[in-house]
Amino acid sequence: MHEQFNFAIEVLGTIAFSMSGSFAAMQKRLDPFGVLIIAFVTSVGGGTVRDLLLDIPVFWMHDLLMCALIIITSVVSMVFKSLEKNFKVTLFIFDSFGLGLFTIIGIQKGLNVGIHPLICIGLGTITGCFGGIIRDILLNRIPLIFRKEIYATACIVGGAVFLLMTKYTPLSYTFVQIFTILLIVAIRTLAVKYQWQMPKFYGYDQTSEM
Amino acid sequence: MHEQFNFAIEVLGTIAFSMSGSFAAMQKRLDPFGVLIIAFVTSVGGGTVRDLLLDIPVFWMHDLLMCALIIITSVVSMVFKSLEKNFKVTLFIFDSFGLGLFTIIGIQKGLNVGIHPLICIGLGTITGCFGGIIRDILLNRIPLIFRKEIYATACIVGGAVFLLMTKYTPLSYTFVQIFTILLIVAIRTLAVKYQWQMPKFYGYDQTSEM
Amino acid sequence: MHEQFNFAIEVLGTIAFSMSGSFAAMQKRLDPFGVLIIAFVTSVGGGTVRDLLLDIPVFWMHDLLMCALIIITSVVSMVFKSLEKNFKVTLFIFDSFGLGLFTIIGIQKGLNVGIHPLICIGLGTITGCFGGIIRDILLNRIPLIFRKEIYATACIVGGAVFLLMTKYTPLSYTFVQIFTILLIVAIRTLAVKYQWQMPKFYGYDQTSEM
Repeated sequence: MHEQFNFAIEVLGTIAFSMSGSFAAMQKRLDPFGVLIIAFVTSVGGGTVRDLLLDIPVFWMHDLLMCALIIITSVVSMVFKSLEKNFKVTLFIFDSFGLGLFTIIGIQKGLNVGIHPLICIGLGTITGCFGGIIRDILLNRIPLIFRKEIYATACIVGGAVFLLMTKYTPLSYTFVQIFTILLIVAIRTLAVKYQWQMPKFYGYDQTSEM
Repeated sequence: MHEQFNFAIEVLGTIAFSMSGSFAAMQKRLDPFGVLIIAFVTSVGGGTVRDLLLDIPVFWMHDLLMCALIIITSVVSMVFKSLEKNFKVTLFIFDSFGLGLFTIIGIQKGLNVGIHPLICIGLGTITGCFGGIIRDILLNRIPLIFRKEIYATACIVGGAVFLLMTKYTPLSYTFVQIFTILLIVAIRTLAVKYQWQMPKFYGYDQTSEM
Repeated sequence: MHEQFNFAIEVLGTIAFSMSGSFAAMQKRLDPFGVLIIAFVTSVGGGTVRDLLLDIPVFWMHDLLMCALIIITSVVSMVFKSLEKNFKVTLFIFDSFGLGLFTIIGIQKGLNVGIHPLICIGLGTITGCFGGIIRDILLNRIPLIFRKEIYATACIVGGAVFLLMTKYTPLSYTFVQIFTILLIVAIRTLAVKYQWQMPKFYGYDQTSEM
């Protein structure tokens, strides 16, 4: 059952990021194949970097189902693109779920091959954030981690809570998974809704380059 | 003979992309070593990502000949840079050949290690496009896949035709290779000449960020 | 002793690049976790690409000490950020030392696994430059190799001198290491102080795109 739950969150995260990539690419008026490529990169980017770092087989290279899922989600997003205008909130929540789901998957894969828990938090953050970062770089948008919203912070906090709860509480693993995924979604959603921001470093000239 | 043909198209593709990278870097007025680095990245970028994804040895790490070829091509491009002004068309055709050659090589390498043909089309597209994408990101240009011209589309169509022809026609493998490489070159050339474009997604504000 | 010296230069280079990344991120007014991520990427980026290319374990995945070092350096940089204004020169020298240290480490790691010396110069340049390139791309700054200053040139010259001296002079390995690291620092420092520039390719319209 544990395996199946992991599979389910990977599928959901993939759909979420594939939609998020497709809509971002359509906003930038790419052609359908361009949209497909951006959807693909957004979905698999974080996990690909994670697998390369861990030197384990890249997850989608032997997983036709996952590739088909991304293509279908992207095509469906293109067909129903008009709906997106009315569902900005839905899309935002999808993106947040993708972030939470992928962060926890990244931490688990790291723990599985014996990486130190603290490094696994970094690995989870990479899995969650890098798909979106690569998408934004390719689309010439300012990468998300660079904007006001709390993003990587949500991954790091969620990842730390996940590790602490699995180690120091008697709660079931699946419960901790769901709880921390929802925690990451909640942090990011509330942060945007109430415009939470981490304190920043002022007193610098933003345009100056060394 | 098959091996030799593969070697020949890898050499030609490398020269084509090395020239394309050199001229793009000179246009941006980099110094000679900067030009060399961009030429190198453009030539090996796509194949490097492909080899990392397939977890096979990165092709240029043990291939002094290929590295020397890139350096020599780049130096020759710098010496004869003045000629480029009169040969924009030649350069464009070189870039298109690089695209076609590398796409087919990428698909073949994927098939060789038992990757599913559909995923191999993606792998071919990555091999063909990523060198140019990394070049454009480093040079602060808008990545090619983001522009009007048909680019990734040519790779995907050419790759699909390659797979269908090798599977369902009795034609020789070498013929199919040459045919699909020329097909990719033709699609891209005709697309630019007649300003073919894939339909795009309108109705979005291009500057809006979610 | 040789092992210990190598460890020492890796630690110093990591601190140097972690500081350089932290200050660049604070200049762009990222929040503390954003600063941490940029510090991390700047420090490990070059070595990560090198290890992936060599297909050896990524150095920081099993090295909690190195990760802790980056985090501590980044936190210290944030706490003492006000000092940076008065120490631009110090920071610049740190960055130059990072460049020199990482270039030589990259070459050594390549030689250790039997890569041809000429390719190792490229590997050293990648190790030295890519952390900074990734940092600049994430922070939406023009990558350093694209600016006026001599940067990659210093790596390539220093790397070539390193290889020639270890092969053709009877000087001790450690002496050659220190000498070439200082050479790279000197080239870069003098280049900026006296505004040395490599000759560039004029006669191109900088804004034109093919």
